[in-house]
Amino acid sequence: MRRKEFTVEEEQEIITFLDQCSFGFLGTISPDGQPRVTPLNFVYMDGCFYFHGSLAGEKMKQIKQNTSVSFTVAEEFSLIPSYFTDPELACPATSFFKSVMAFGQAEPVKDLEIKGRVLQRFMEKLQPQGGYVPIDAADSRYTGQLKAVAVVQITPERLTAKFKFGQNLSSEEFEDLSSKLKARNEGRDTETAEMMRKYCPFHQ
Amino acid sequence: MRRKEFTVEEEQEIITFLDQCSFGFLGTISPDGQPRVTPLNFVYMDGCFYFHGSLAGEKMKQIKQNTSVSFTVAEEFSLIPSYFTDPELACPATSFFKSVMAFGQAEPVKDLEIKGRVLQRFMEKLQPQGGYVPIDAADSRYTGQLKAVAVVQITPERLTAKFKFGQNLSSEEFEDLSSKLKARNEGRDTETAEMMRKYCPFHQ
Repeated sequence: MRRKEFTVEEEQEIITFLDQCSFGFLGTISPDGQPRVTPLNFVYMDGCFYFHGSLAGEKMKQIKQNTSVSFTVAEEFSLIPSYFTDPELACPATSFFKSVMAFGQAEPVKDLEIKGRVLQRFMEKLQPQGGYVPIDAADSRYTGQLKAVAVVQITPERLTAKFKFGQNLSSEEFEDLSSKLKARNEGRDTETAEMMRKYCPFHQ
Repeated sequence: MRRKEFTVEEEQEIITFLDQCSFGFLGTISPDGQPRVTPLNFVYMDGCFYFHGSLAGEKMKQIKQNTSVSFTVAEEFSLIPSYFTDPELACPATSFFKSVMAFGQAEPVKDLEIKGRVLQRFMEKLQPQGGYVPIDAADSRYTGQLKAVAVVQITPERLTAKFKFGQNLSSEEFEDLSSKLKARNEGRDTETAEMMRKYCPFHQ
């Protein structure tokens, strides 16, 4: 399922990012109108987000009452200190990150066969090294468990992605910041410099 | 400001966790009733969460219409593969994590002096190495900038914390899982084993 708001290449980058992030944040609304944000492991499969949980949990209750949800995944790459760009003022301090935000409808998956496929996808994502009997609804070792777990599908009506890596910098500022990140070389700085180059309008 | 639902020690652990996490997830409700989850850098100060942003942004519009928000911070420590506890079935696969969820009211901070103090706290958290002129509303280099930025305070009415580190394991299962994590020793596994010991009911 391709989303019309993105090019094939952009969509592939979003999918790769979502496959690399083990958890995201579900936004729901409680019956008394209070928003709630719940961190959850998830998979993104055929254009939908899926998560699982207890049939009796708070999330399931909220989703039954109000199917409107959002789901957001974000990862920080590097904090950019103010002195990389200004010797005096704190104002330019910022961070470079990737985030994906989806808005849509949540619906419990009832079909055992689909539940099995979704949970198998969870395992492939979060335990790629294997070491378990593949999940199959027809396997009697799994049938009961699949009935007892809630699996929820979120079908996005709108999906936005923000990959912030200094795309607004001038060519000169870009080279300066990129070389400072490479010189600092802490955490994901080298990867951040690569992302800057990848998404910079001057290098496309 | 101490929260009555936690002991002093628990509250201190929550504060330490929030100080270590550079970003969290704001839950708001749009005028048409759709939840929205926005990733944001934040500080936790005197029992309140603070974030900053553009005065004209989508978040600010939503908060003006509906002050009910939630704010969630989470960090995954280790994925626990199913084969650590079951040689066959995928079901026991899980993850150990810390999360804090707050529900409350959001209100823009108008007082320039408080804005300055909040943003200075941001700098101390996210740029602890210094390298900038301290933010002070009375400093003419900062006054205009402080007027132009939105700072929002979230006063939690309810705050919950979940530090999941196998607290439900038997003493035998605990020792087995803990030694497997130390032997694997990937990512934060050693820290996860420490957290298991810290929060395990047998070791308190």
